[in-house]
Amino acid sequence: MSKVIDFRTDPSKYRHWKVEYDGPVATVYMDVDENGGLFEGYQLKLNSYDLGVDIELADVVQRMRFEHPEVKTVVMKSAKDKVFCAGANIRMLGGAAHSHKVNFCKFTNETRNTFEAAEADSSQKWIAAVKGACAGGGYELALACNHIMLTDDSTSSVALPEVPLLAVLPGTGGLTRVTDKRKVRRDRADIFCSIEEGIKGKRAVEWRLVDEVVPNSKFDETVAERAREFAANSSKADVAQGITLGPIDRKIEADAVHYDLVEVEIDRDGRRATISIAGPGTDAPGSIDDVMAQGDQGYMLKLARELDDAILHLRLNEMELGLWVFRTQGDPEQVIAHEELLTANADNWLANEILQYWKRVLKRIDVTSRSLAALVEHGSCYAGVLAEILFAVDRSYMMEDEFEGDNRPTATITLSNSNFGLYPMGNDLSRLETRFLGEPESLEAARAAIGEALEAEAADEKGLVTMILDDIDWDDEIRIFMEERASFSPDAMTGMEANLRFAGPETMETRIFGRLTAWQNWIFNRPNAVGKDGALQRYGTGVRGDYNMERV
Amino acid sequence: MSKVIDFRTDPSKYRHWKVEYDGPVATVYMDVDENGGLFEGYQLKLNSYDLGVDIELADVVQRMRFEHPEVKTVVMKSAKDKVFCAGANIRMLGGAAHSHKVNFCKFTNETRNTFEAAEADSSQKWIAAVKGACAGGGYELALACNHIMLTDDSTSSVALPEVPLLAVLPGTGGLTRVTDKRKVRRDRADIFCSIEEGIKGKRAVEWRLVDEVVPNSKFDETVAERAREFAANSSKADVAQGITLGPIDRKIEADAVHYDLVEVEIDRDGRRATISIAGPGTDAPGSIDDVMAQGDQGYMLKLARELDDAILHLRLNEMELGLWVFRTQGDPEQVIAHEELLTANADNWLANEILQYWKRVLKRIDVTSRSLAALVEHGSCYAGVLAEILFAVDRSYMMEDEFEGDNRPTATITLSNSNFGLYPMGNDLSRLETRFLGEPESLEAARAAIGEALEAEAADEKGLVTMILDDIDWDDEIRIFMEERASFSPDAMTGMEANLRFAGPETMETRIFGRLTAWQNWIFNRPNAVGKDGALQRYGTGVRGDYNMERV
Repeated sequence: MSKVIDFRTDPSKYRHWKVEYDGPVATVYMDVDENGGLFEGYQLKLNSYDLGVDIELADVVQRMRFEHPEVKTVVMKSAKDKVFCAGANIRMLGGAAHSHKVNFCKFTNETRNTFEAAEADSSQKWIAAVKGACAGGGYELALACNHIMLTDDSTSSVALPEVPLLAVLPGTGGLTRVTDKRKVRRDRADIFCSIEEGIKGKRAVEWRLVDEVVPNSKFDETVAERAREFAANSSKADVAQGITLGPIDRKIEADAVHYDLVEVEIDRDGRRATISIAGPGTDAPGSIDDVMAQGDQGYMLKLARELDDAILHLRLNEMELGLWVFRTQGDPEQVIAHEELLTANADNWLANEILQYWKRVLKRIDVTSRSLAALVEHGSCYAGVLAEILFAVDRSYMMEDEFEGDNRPTATITLSNSNFGLYPMGNDLSRLETRFLGEPESLEAARAAIGEALEAEAADEKGLVTMILDDIDWDDEIRIFMEERASFSPDAMTGMEANLRFAGPETMETRIFGRLTAWQNWIFNRPNAVGKDGALQRYGTGVRGDYNMERV
Repeated sequence: MSKVIDFRTDPSKYRHWKVEYDGPVATVYMDVDENGGLFEGYQLKLNSYDLGVDIELADVVQRMRFEHPEVKTVVMKSAKDKVFCAGANIRMLGGAAHSHKVNFCKFTNETRNTFEAAEADSSQKWIAAVKGACAGGGYELALACNHIMLTDDSTSSVALPEVPLLAVLPGTGGLTRVTDKRKVRRDRADIFCSIEEGIKGKRAVEWRLVDEVVPNSKFDETVAERAREFAANSSKADVAQGITLGPIDRKIEADAVHYDLVEVEIDRDGRRATISIAGPGTDAPGSIDDVMAQGDQGYMLKLARELDDAILHLRLNEMELGLWVFRTQGDPEQVIAHEELLTANADNWLANEILQYWKRVLKRIDVTSRSLAALVEHGSCYAGVLAEILFAVDRSYMMEDEFEGDNRPTATITLSNSNFGLYPMGNDLSRLETRFLGEPESLEAARAAIGEALEAEAADEKGLVTMILDDIDWDDEIRIFMEERASFSPDAMTGMEANLRFAGPETMETRIFGRLTAWQNWIFNRPNAVGKDGALQRYGTGVRGDYNMERV
């Protein structure tokens, strides 16, 4: 492992973003430090971004919700003249390994989705105030905002020039948001995605590419007015003060990552990571006021943050660990109690934010391109929100009956109300709904068992686990499964899992991770884009890519 | 161009299939001729298939609907001992160019879809009667049938061994039909797709992989019984006699393909094919009886067949023609009249079959991986079913006002009722509905214009064309568009078009062509599958592929 990419940051460390707070309106300035790239070999000119820039942005969005719940409208602007954002840095893309490129795109996609989630979940609306060139990933940033304002001058336009310029796709949701969110007529979208210079002025509004175009002389004033308007009309409750998200304690060793509640154990030969989650260890706080007082140290929030960080760390820094195995140990009743305090107070802003954050963490698991398994061992605490992990993984194995020398409480699974819709997948169904698409009666049977601590046989009978195993079979079966999984082609696993995990309806979100990402990955492997005479390598030389013209 | 792949065939030429007719029940036997491969270098052992086998199968399905409308249930069986079908031939796949592989998969996917369409559109139900090994593409064939019967013996199973055995996906709809059609629980699907040997007996039913498992001794008898039952309960009307689909007249020249109603002109330097469609040239038949009497010589059916053949020919034999330009010339009122006779008699079996065939031909255009444009010139006949082409293509250009020296009737577009739902896309919406997803009022305005011959300005105002151009701009604009399109990376075009064409809801069908196909194409470019040490190349050597274990 070379340099470890760290997803933990805070405003004191930002190099690329500045945030100003003014009551219910916040302004986020993109001001990328050319020399602040995460790796060597490229400069982040013209507000172009790499993963490092996006890690900070993700932090901005996250803190906006937890630390600044008073904010109802967020305006995204550029702090640079003449350019809003030039998109992902091309030299970085040209030099990056396929695996980095794809995982980078996944993270940026997840971050874009959080803009929309902020409004959907917390009525915190993001506005893009576009002055200057807004191209490729830059326009994709704007597309993720729910209101796009474009200034009307000679240099300001929105553009998706990837196809003509780089022979790749606007792959961070661009194509999908154009058709599915903005509902641009497809022949117009075809033109828009084929012209390098983009579209500006009234035509951008007429084609639904932006929401309003404003004379340059009145732009700042109109943006401020619009932000105040949205804030005034927001359904977001007034909140005086947020909580502080302190640093996440983490210790990385050669074959382990330690947090307070999460332990990651790495088996490099076996190509797997075991992610162990600890239960609360304490009773639930007595009231929602106590949750507020605990802030980032409360169990539910602390665990979500640690798990989120572990996922991102493993994704980007440990690419050869193709199998993640989840374990839990703790008291299931305590997990239920901690969760229940939040669900019972979901109208409290912090309770809501914590639950919504869990939704996002669980979605991150869903779209993680690793084989995922869960072990339901004796002493485990797969209850409520943690039971959700069982329905996110590809397979789960549960201990049945007594195991010799094992005195831990018998393995159980406990469902809560929250397993039936509180944490929907990207397809907008609950994981159990997706699981039981072909057998709705099983969904009802599971619902009837809410609150029961289901031992192996009952859990199996209800279809909640893949397989139950007794003391005689457990070790061998698990070992064989892990060895088998580690022997398969990682690419085939990625493709298989991307197809099996999301049955049922598709949404803009599943389409971005499924259809758009898959085509982009394909193109990222084709000589026309990445070959030595391909468009990405030739970018900036003034010479177009040399293409094999065969259509496939 | 080497060998031309011919999609035209008829039972007298079949090498791989036999069909028996017995009143309302037909039996289709797969009996692949080992030595009948379309190309050199492989033998079609164990009922494995290549494109040639599938071309015959597509012909079987098509003739079943037109020539044998009396058939209500079709039973698909193997004529070989111990094997139902081993799937796509691996050596063929290992040796084929990427472009051939992908276009082959697209055609087989379209053919599988016609099984389901036969029941949905014409109540002609397909049953798979599985005896012996049914693996990979073999099980995908069965999955496309709407009832799967499996014999209960020691060697008969269903399997999708692509992932463990070949490091590729069950890409002919397999993964998607398992999750979305059969709604197999995802962890079971994960296991099923990871084991080479497949699943048999009761477990196959319990896991929803097959509909029934029958003791071997009673298998044939039970299959016959079930076929009769389905036929007896079918809602398909009794029809005494079908029509004959005679040979399609076609003449291929170096840079042209001639049919009676369709002309294809090839510009190799410009990398485009111009597909010109002729109007009927005659009044519509006086009655549906006349349509029956005309048989395969009636305008609507003849044109559909010629256009279908041209599409397939260009797709597989002319891969460097990245742009298809559609033209029409003829009397729009005649087109409307010919179509209207069918829609007014849609309860007549033949009228229904012709209209449903048009639906499939238009869908073939939608999923064609070429840039598609249409020119609405003076003298053209984009009316009703032919207007649908305008909404299938990526862009359309329409002549406005008089053109010097052009005495043809002014260019118009005429909508009919059929443009509002009769020919849905794979996403189950009409093309106009998809086009106007963001502006439902435009859909209503278009509907209000049914029957009007809309000249350029009106068509533009209604959003039915991309651009209208007068005599001064026409030539230049069209030329610039074509040159630009021909200069782009074909891969980027493929990815862009696959994302822009299908806004709105996704269905099993769009998911197969969008998500599943894209992941498969990606895998088909990865060394783990196709490299010299990849699984496809090593297949049959007893040595597994040597994989780069990095996850992307």
